Parts: sequence; structure tokens; C-alpha cells
Amino acid sequence: MKQTNVKAYKSDGFIGRYQQLVRDTVIPYQYSVLCDEAEDTEKSHVIANFANAAKALAGEDTGDGFYGMVFQDSDAAKWIEAAAYSLANFPDRALEERADSLIDLIAAAQDKDGYLNTYYTCKDTDKRWTNLLEGHELYCSGHMIEAAVAYAEATGKDKLLRVMTRNMEHIYDHFIVKGCEGFPGHPEIELALMKMYRATGNEHALELARTFIDRRGTDPDFFRKERESRDWTVWGSDGKDPDYQQSGRPVREQTEATGHAVRAVYLYTGMADLIDTDDTLRPACETLWDNITNRRMYITGGIGSTVLGEAFTADYDLPSDTAYCETCASIGLMFFASAMLRHDADRKYSDVMERAFYNTVLAGMQLDGKRFFYVNPLECDPGISGKAPTHRHVVTTRPKWYACACCPPNAARLIMSFGKYAYSEDDTAVYAHMYAGGKVIFDNGCELICRTSYPDDMTVRYTVVRAGNARRIAVRIPGWSEAFSLSVGGKTITALDKGYAYADISDGTEICLTLDGTPRFNFASPRIPHIAGMTALSRGPLVYCFEGTDNGNVSALTLDTAVTPQIKGNDASLGGASVIECAAVRDEDTDIPYSFTQSSAPASARAIPYYTWCNRGETQMRVWMRKK
Amino acid sequence: MKQTNVKAYKSDGFIGRYQQLVRDTVIPYQYSVLCDEAEDTEKSHVIANFANAAKALAGEDTGDGFYGMVFQDSDAAKWIEAAAYSLANFPDRALEERADSLIDLIAAAQDKDGYLNTYYTCKDTDKRWTNLLEGHELYCSGHMIEAAVAYAEATGKDKLLRVMTRNMEHIYDHFIVKGCEGFPGHPEIELALMKMYRATGNEHALELARTFIDRRGTDPDFFRKERESRDWTVWGSDGKDPDYQQSGRPVREQTEATGHAVRAVYLYTGMADLIDTDDTLRPACETLWDNITNRRMYITGGIGSTVLGEAFTADYDLPSDTAYCETCASIGLMFFASAMLRHDADRKYSDVMERAFYNTVLAGMQLDGKRFFYVNPLECDPGISGKAPTHRHVVTTRPKWYACACCPPNAARLIMSFGKYAYSEDDTAVYAHMYAGGKVIFDNGCELICRTSYPDDMTVRYTVVRAGNARRIAVRIPGWSEAFSLSVGGKTITALDKGYAYADISDGTEICLTLDGTPRFNFASPRIPHIAGMTALSRGPLVYCFEGTDNGNVSALTLDTAVTPQIKGNDASLGGASVIECAAVRDEDTDIPYSFTQSSAPASARAIPYYTWCNRGETQMRVWMRKK
Repeated sequence: MKQTNVKAYKSDGFIGRYQQLVRDTVIPYQYSVLCDEAEDTEKSHVIANFANAAKALAGEDTGDGFYGMVFQDSDAAKWIEAAAYSLANFPDRALEERADSLIDLIAAAQDKDGYLNTYYTCKDTDKRWTNLLEGHELYCSGHMIEAAVAYAEATGKDKLLRVMTRNMEHIYDHFIVKGCEGFPGHPEIELALMKMYRATGNEHALELARTFIDRRGTDPDFFRKERESRDWTVWGSDGKDPDYQQSGRPVREQTEATGHAVRAVYLYTGMADLIDTDDTLRPACETLWDNITNRRMYITGGIGSTVLGEAFTADYDLPSDTAYCETCASIGLMFFASAMLRHDADRKYSDVMERAFYNTVLAGMQLDGKRFFYVNPLECDPGISGKAPTHRHVVTTRPKWYACACCPPNAARLIMSFGKYAYSEDDTAVYAHMYAGGKVIFDNGCELICRTSYPDDMTVRYTVVRAGNARRIAVRIPGWSEAFSLSVGGKTITALDKGYAYADISDGTEICLTLDGTPRFNFASPRIPHIAGMTALSRGPLVYCFEGTDNGNVSALTLDTAVTPQIKGNDASLGGASVIECAAVRDEDTDIPYSFTQSSAPASARAIPYYTWCNRGETQMRVWMRKK
Repeated sequence: MKQTNVKAYKSDGFIGRYQQLVRDTVIPYQYSVLCDEAEDTEKSHVIANFANAAKALAGEDTGDGFYGMVFQDSDAAKWIEAAAYSLANFPDRALEERADSLIDLIAAAQDKDGYLNTYYTCKDTDKRWTNLLEGHELYCSGHMIEAAVAYAEATGKDKLLRVMTRNMEHIYDHFIVKGCEGFPGHPEIELALMKMYRATGNEHALELARTFIDRRGTDPDFFRKERESRDWTVWGSDGKDPDYQQSGRPVREQTEATGHAVRAVYLYTGMADLIDTDDTLRPACETLWDNITNRRMYITGGIGSTVLGEAFTADYDLPSDTAYCETCASIGLMFFASAMLRHDADRKYSDVMERAFYNTVLAGMQLDGKRFFYVNPLECDPGISGKAPTHRHVVTTRPKWYACACCPPNAARLIMSFGKYAYSEDDTAVYAHMYAGGKVIFDNGCELICRTSYPDDMTVRYTVVRAGNARRIAVRIPGWSEAFSLSVGGKTITALDKGYAYADISDGTEICLTLDGTPRFNFASPRIPHIAGMTALSRGPLVYCFEGTDNGNVSALTLDTAVTPQIKGNDASLGGASVIECAAVRDEDTDIPYSFTQSSAPASARAIPYYTWCNRGETQMRVWMRKK
């Protein structure tokens, strides 16, 4: 039975602290960026763009016009979406007023035919819909549709949803009624249209999503021909590599994750969303999932091995120090996982969803919520990272903002909607895919309270306050937990189906799950040349790393995996995260590059969770270590 | 006392076989390429370019005009230079006639004012000397000067030398007499002018070399301003990164090897050549040498860590799989080493010269002399190499030729002039920097015969047939030889001065040197993150590597450095090179990317000399291996 994501989740514990940080710090900070009021950082201008577009439509002088990326509008959309999730659980009148007035501005920037995009409206309305390859109009509409759905769900206010329904109908008119060719150069709107469809039942949204999915790749030369038919480009893209936009073949025939990683996982999410109505998409989704997670994903849940095109490269090409691992790509991987989970409660999806969240997504944000990584390497070497031309993208300090600012607001909306990924439901069951403390209210009437200090502590307790129509709970037992104990209403459960334990519930059922939080050494497949024969430490969902701050030159360390690593308490400078010590040997430093001898001495190596790295100044960092 | 390079060396042994291969196969093959008669390979057109330029000067129709790189002329120059070295030791009437007629063509392509460059003469004479940043006119003149000097020395025919003297005077007139600003965007002519000066005593050549060296970097903005003063470019270079052309500061103030690696080492060679007449250049040469060899050089003597600009990057940034290590750059490093050795017989120079030759330079050519590498990685993974965007430059099979064909003829001329690098002399001494079997005749009257199967065998015997004016021999004892025995005229020598053993000689003196050919594991400094904690096998000057052909997945192997590697005889399929077996363990293959367990089994790993890799089909290859 198909599940739906949960709407009402009031968090506490680890997730609660992160959501509070986003509410108190990240959302206000990001708003100041959008208004160009943040200090010492990249200019956004996104709110001014909407105001200027409205002036353009009114025939007025557009003032300072448009500034920013062709997809600048999407930063406002993601901020509204994050604000919506925040308002759903933390009523905040000032925030709601701020969002309402931004929505008013957006509505004013919509053309009378439903078109909405400040880049084209401010700059050149004749260029509308002529550059699907690079133009990002469908991408921006997609993000704004997501914001509209979230804002209506959170506040009951449907102004933005009406705006975006008109915009969707405009797009429907262009691509379906008028029959104009094409599909998005940057997939995004597909998954957004499916959100709109699920929220409103609007069949045009479904038809549009399906049309974009079905058209893709039927003519691999579409974008090249589109490019040749116009005399302008945004970035000079020639459209000659259709795999870059996942349009080299029809989606049902795609077997390898190619091209721009964010585009890829956004597309696959849209495809997975459509499985309900078209099961012929399922095999491709499963094949692409396996290709990514078995061959093209870092242990941190990062994807996209190269900065060149922010892209997937080849099977088993997973370099640590030049990794791209865009924060948005791991967020998109969570989307894909969640969409697959709705059809198939298999921990192969939820394990990866959790891996991506607790490692790459959280690492994308400084612990104080004020700085953000776009790129999330598994190794950083100040002196090389950020300096060598091959490593320029690997910055050694989180910036405050980006000219291309997709990641920070994406992380904000993801964290604020964590409950939607952690919990789902169908008519008679509730699902716990990830462990998230707090209160959950399901549409099927079930109300659940979860108490846990996870991922620091491995015990998770649930109380079924009311069962409602739910007769069963499905609790994921992670693949990383070598042992577990689960009792439901005093009864021990051991049987698993695709990594999920199923148990009957009723009002008042008490559930206690204990997972195995022993620190573990991970070993890479010898098929992955960069890390074959090396080891990475993890505990629960958290991948650990070794920083120069704690260890001096981490490249001089070789870990002794025969000695059990020891948890050494919580580090206040890392938000209270658990640190772990390992036995190691340290090679003696030398300025001779190559020698016939090498001396080394026993040493201890201190590891911290990967998501906390780079919170104590610029320093060296490694996830994968040599082992004895 | 300053040394000069030896002129007459008739090789046998290992070097003899390579020179014979170049004479019999490489030089004829390359000529067929230059004539566009080679099959299935890149077009050269270089000889036609000269013919067409001559027609342009005669006011005739230029036929199919110019084709190729802006520096296409230099391929002909390097071929003539290689042919000259070949003719010096292997008289060959047909080859000499071929070279003579090419020289006739070149002479006809020279303008009446001495200008010589087919690109500009065929295309647009108004552009002459307006693009020193990219134009390569001085670079091409430099290579042709080198060819002219070599051809005159080898054959006694001075037609090309007269052509190039007129060309040099034309350049002198432009840059010195007329006082036009500028210096080469691609250094090369400096070292060529110094060859001309040493061969002819022409003071204008010396003054021109010195002027170019002294001007460089005095205005770091020179190339940016030059770019802004013209409305055309060759490749779009903006001149905004002066370090790319080593012109960010005056050469005497340069401390780090930056930018395009070949340009860098060609420049430093020119600087070192000038030390005789200007000792203020010495400290910068020594500092730059140390920077390269201690921090920016691969164990194979490869330099230039990145394909992006074919350039140096940062200290200790030495990735194996994305290495550039252009063949020409290691040849240039040998030039720099040899130039430093002329002033200072220190094995720190000759050790590196030998390392570069026996590894990167020789690896640049297939064992049959018919295919060539431009890029010489230390790791190759078919499936990733040549395919991932970051690895596109790492081709997995040597191509027959290149559109940018600098390397193949450069390797040919280097191999054919090996004696000049192996041996030098001053008025009263002869120097053996590298071990090269054959007969050597020095200008000081000494005649030496060297008998050795080096580098397969570690015994080198010299007979002083005649001492001439030489009273001493200086024999390098390599840094890699942990022990050695040297007897000169029956007397054992143990004392070394900067790694050289000095001994008196007279007519008939017999010298016997035995070096330590034990296979050795090398360990990288922990400052080099990519290879810290790893090991590479070497024997004598030869770095070894592990190929998939012998070992299956080499990334699954971990070497046991506690077990002594065993030499396992010679491999006929590798030109008789010695192969070595090491104890290892092999990790079990798995398609699970990350696991908590890993099983492995004892295995044996077979290593071959790096220079012989990729001679048995496309396969995986690694130099640096994990170690137990």
C-alpha cells in the first residue's frame, strides 16, 4: 500500500535542536541575505528581483533590474518553503507576516498569462521558453510550487498556491495545449508537480509531470537543436552531451546515473513519484538507485564526484579530496529515497536517506547555522584544497553565502521538514524510517511520541498515545546495526521484512528499540581505487573523520583496526557530539619526499563526526585512513 | 670549473638498443608523420607548412596554407635535431639527404628580414611579434636554433645554422636594437640561444638570452597589457595569471615552480645556463630546483600535477591517477638538471636526471617506438581513466601521434643525445653522471669505453683507452645505492664529494663500479597526502609498477614490505626487463561498496618497470600501493 509522508511533527532531541537552530538563526539570517541586508557576503537581490519584475509588468521603471543567477527566484521559494515548515510547528506571527508580504510581491511579479520568472520578466520577455536547456524557468516554477504547497499546508493560506496553480496552467497551456516541444533542462518541476497533485488532486499537474518524464530522452538531440535554433545562451552550453541532462535516452531505458547530480536525483524522484500511476517506471528507478548507491555514492551519502559540471563520473570513481558531493545532491538523494520508500518499505532506501542526512546534509551547515558548504569533500588539505586548480572548489572554511546559493536554503527546508522523511503512513500503519524525537500526528489518526537522544544514544522509545486507524507500526532496523533489541507492548520482535520490523499497536502501546552503537571500522570495496585497502570509522549513522585540530598531520596516521575504538564522551565545542579514540601509529615527519626507510611510533587518533568538521577553524580533515 | 657536455658517444647496451630503436623506427616513423604519410593518426602538415610559407613569401598561392598548432614548426625542428644526433653516431646518407632537403625548405620559408615562422607567414604577417603570450614565435625559433646547432655539430653543414643566425639577428634587432618590449610567453629560446652561444661564440645570442631572462617578471602585467592591446588571441589567454608564464616576479626573486611545467623547466634551464656569466642567477636556480624536487615531483621524475594548464599546482599535491607528468616536462627537468650539473657536480641533480629518464621519459614511448604518451600517470584505472571528466587526459593506450605533438619528437631527440646528459668534461676531468655503455670521446682528448648491462645489471666497467688531457674521472654514486664498490686502477675508492667519487686516471686505467641493485620499498613523506603511508617499489633507477595484466585488480593488493622482494628474471614481452615479485595480501572482491568486514588472502604481486607499462594492452596500473 502506498504511503504518504507525515504532516505534523513537533520535534525534540537532536532533530529538535537542529530545527530550533534553523527557526531561530538560519531562516532569519537567510531572509536578511535575500533582502541584501547580511554583511560581508554575496549579494542575493532575489526579493528586489520580484519587486522589479512587478514594476516591469506594470510598465514602470525597473530600478536596478535583475541581479543574480538565472534561477535566482528559487532561493526565495526555498526560503518560503522552510518558513512554512517552521510555521507548521512553531507559530511565529512576525515570520508569517514576512512570508505573506514576500508572497504578495511574488504574486505581483506574475504576468497576466500566469508566467512567473523575474529573470525573463525583467530582462527580455521574448526569450521566455526558448532556452529550456539552461533557462531554469521550469526549475524555478517547480521550487515555487513546492513552496506554495508547503505554505498552504502549514498556514491554510492559499494565495501562493493559487498563483502557482495559474503558473502551472500557463505551463500546461504552453507544453500540452499548444503542444510546444520540450522538457526541463534541470529537472525539478516533475517532483513539485507531483506534490501539487497529491495536495490538490489537480490532474493537469499530474499530466504535466508525466509528459515531461515521458518526453525526456526520446530525442537525444533536443537540446542541441534548441541551442542551434537560438542566438543566445546563459552559460554557453551547447546541449551536445544529453547525458548531462539525463536526456540521452528515454528514462525507462536509463541504467546509469549520469550528468549533473542534482538534476539526476531530482528527476529520479519525479520518476519514483509517478510509479503509483505508472509502474513501468519502477525498474528504471530501482536500477538507477542501485547504480548510485552501490557504485557512485560516497560513504557520507555524498554524490557527484567531480566539480566539472557538478556531476556523476564513472562507476567506482570516488576521490576523497576532489569530491564535489554538493549538499543539494544529497538532499535530492533523500528525496529519491523517500519517494522509493513510499512504494517499498525497504531499508536499502532509508539507510541511505539517513546516511545522506547525518553526514553530507548536516555537514553542509556550520553548527551555529551561519555558514554553509556547497561542496563536501572527504578529505581536506589546507595548502592544496582551495588552492590547486583541481581543488579550487574544495574551500577550507564554510562561506556565509554563495552567488549560486542553492544549498543553504535547501538545507534549511530539508531540516525543517525532517518529519516527512522520518515518518510516513498509510491507512492502517505508521512507519518510522528514521529516529526522530518528538510528537507525530498522522492523518490516519495515530499519535506517537518518540523519546530519544539518538544518534548520541542508541535507545529509541515510542509511545502510541492514540492508535487511530493505525493497527501496525513498521520500524526500520538499520543495516549498520549488527544487533538490536525491539520490544513492542512487552513482546520481543526479531523478524524483519526488508529491514523493517512490523508489530501491532493500539492505544498506549509502548515500544523500545535499542540499536548497536559500537564504533565500527568500514572497509571499502577493492573496486574503488581511491580508498581500496583503507578504513573509515562510523558509529550508528554517523561517519567519523579525523581533523588536524585534534591530530596534527592526519596523513601521518595509520589506524590499527584490530584495537576497538573507544567513545570518549561529548565535545562541547562540537555541539556535544561524541568523539572516538582509535589506536594508530604515526609516521615520522620528513621533508624528504621519498625514502627507503620510514619510522613510526604508536599514537592515538581522535575522531569526530563528519558533520561537525570545520567548526574549529581551517584544518586538515580525512574520512578514509590508511590501516595497519 | 665549468663543464661542457660530451659530443661523441657511440652507444651500446640498454642505451644503445634505445638509440637503435629511435634511429631505425622512431625517426623514420616521425618523418612519415611530418609528411602526413603515417596512417590512422593525427595530421601534422608541418613540412607542407614550410613549403606553403615559402610560396607565400614568393607571392605564390599557398595551396592548402597553414595547418596545426601555432608552434607546429617546432615538430620539424625537433625531428631535425634527433636526426642530427643520429647522424653523429650512425652515418646514414638517406637520412642526411632527407634532413638536408627539409632544411632547404625551411631556408626558403625564411623572410628576407630573417623572420621565420610558417604560422604567421602563411596566415597574417601583420600579427608578427604582437602576441608573445601565446604566439610561440620565439619558442619555434628556439627549437630551430637547437636543431641548427646540433645539425652543424653532427654533419659539419651550417646551412640551417646560418638561417637561424639570421633569424636570431632579426630577433636581436627587434627586441634589442629597436628596443621592442617583451619576452617569451613560452620560454625555450633562452636555452637555445645559450647553445648557439656555446657553439658559435655569437655575443648577440648571449645578450638576447640574458635580456629575455632579465626582463621576465619585471612587469607582472606585461602579458595582460599585451592582450588588451590586440584584438585577437590564439586560445583566448588573458594574461592575467603571470605565474602561469613564470613572469609574476623577476626571475631572481622566484622561489616556487609555478604554471606550465614545461615552460618552467625550460626557463630554469636557460637561467642555469647563464650562471657562468651571471652568478646572481644561481640562488634562484637552486631554490627552484629544491622546490620542484622536494615538493612538486613524482617518484617517477614526473612534474606538473594537473592537466589544467599542464601545470604545477601546490607543494605536496601529487595525485597518482590524475597526474599530468608530461613527457616533455621530464625532458625539461633533465635539461635543468644537466645545466645545474655543469656548474656543480652534485648527485642531487644527476639522481633526478636519471629518475626522470628511466621512468617518465622512457614511459613516454611504447617499447616498439611506435606510440607515445604525452601524459604519464602513476595510476591508471580503465573505466575511470580516460572516461571521468577529471581523468579524460589519462589515456589508457599510447596514441600514435598528437595534434599537439611536442612529446614524441622531444623524446626522440633526448634519447639520441643521451650521451650529452650521461657524460661531461672540463679541461682536465671527465664526468660520468649516468651509466651508458659504449665509447665516449671527449674534447679534452680522453677516450673512454663503458661496458654495462645497466640498469638490468649493476656492474659498470670503464676503460680509459686514452686519458688525453684528462687527469681525473668523476663517477656519480647514486643516492639510491645503499652500498657500492668502486675500484679505479685496482685502488678502492670510498670517499664521495656531493655523491661523486673522484679518481686519477691515465691511459689504460680500468674502473669497476658495482651498485646496489636490491629491490627497495620507497615510502612517501607524510606531507604528501595522496601517498602518505603507501609504498612504491624500485630497483636502481627504475621505479616499478603493478599492472592488471599480471595481478588482476591491483587495488585489491596490499604489499607486505617486511618480506624481501625477489627478482624473477627478465620478461621478453617487456623488452627483457627484470620483473620483481612481492609478498602481498589480496582483499576479497565485493560489489558492496562499504562493509564492516573484509577478508583477504595471501597473494603474490608481480611488478614491472614503470617505463614498460601499457605494452601488453589496456590494463590497470599502480605505482603507489597500500602496505601492511
